[in-house]
Amino acid sequence: MFAGEEEGIMFQDITTLLLHPKAFKDAVDMFVDRYRDMGISVVAGIEARGFIFGPSIALAIGAKFVPLRKPRKLPGEVISESYVLEYGTDCLEMHVGAVHPGERALVIDDLVATGGTLCAAIKLLERVGAEVVECACVIGLPKLKGRCMLNGKPVYILVESQE
Amino acid sequence: MFAGEEEGIMFQDITTLLLHPKAFKDAVDMFVDRYRDMGISVVAGIEARGFIFGPSIALAIGAKFVPLRKPRKLPGEVISESYVLEYGTDCLEMHVGAVHPGERALVIDDLVATGGTLCAAIKLLERVGAEVVECACVIGLPKLKGRCMLNGKPVYILVESQE
Repeated sequence: MFAGEEEGIMFQDITTLLLHPKAFKDAVDMFVDRYRDMGISVVAGIEARGFIFGPSIALAIGAKFVPLRKPRKLPGEVISESYVLEYGTDCLEMHVGAVHPGERALVIDDLVATGGTLCAAIKLLERVGAEVVECACVIGLPKLKGRCMLNGKPVYILVESQE
Repeated sequence: MFAGEEEGIMFQDITTLLLHPKAFKDAVDMFVDRYRDMGISVVAGIEARGFIFGPSIALAIGAKFVPLRKPRKLPGEVISESYVLEYGTDCLEMHVGAVHPGERALVIDDLVATGGTLCAAIKLLERVGAEVVECACVIGLPKLKGRCMLNGKPVYILVESQE
């Protein structure tokens, strides 16, 4: 996968994976095989690259897809969580009424670095009474190997970055 | 689906569709059934809601998925196309090397209003020598009924907005 550096920030990019239909399908299938029988009714994807993986997984396991978006992108009533990035702060929003108390949720993003975005996603889901079963990412940065913990929640990672 | 108004701009929202797994699957399946045998090797999705529908269609028909993103979001070398919105201007970018001359492409977005974004997407794909077979959207605004034309390209629409 593509790796680069801009303004001193290393990044990994999943768009080259998407150019290979077999490899892209294999990645989605690994998530689907893992989550098929976990009683998950909510797949929450983080804007924007979580949208690329989350809906396919949701469709395959029969769950709803809930987009977690940047501020002022969702048209309905929302709840918000701020989080700290290595290059500033940002905020995630979720539609009120999209997720109900007691639902079992999976959070999807393309990459986990510091985990700040995933933590905000977990908080949004827990604030409405959902249980976050796990977070899933395609790429984990080097210090995060395989399956790690984030605020007490497991994070499942397909590929460990070599950078 | 959710309809609302903000600062005088009417909008339609597809997130309520995503909350119903059967309805979401039916929508994706309608696209897949239509495009399965058209020799399409590229599904290009427009950020951000085109990412919610495009990858599932690409996976089902064995095509690559190419994200068309807002400026400065793609890490590799890009080509850009500006377009006019009803509330300003914006720009779409595509990775150089993602699509090759002669490839048959489908463009996906959630909604078509003026068609400006879709036109920019068509231009990006045609600049690298691809053939845009069709554009596909979940929602079309009222003046766009069923299957319409956009700069000589057909646009396929699942649902006509009542607003």
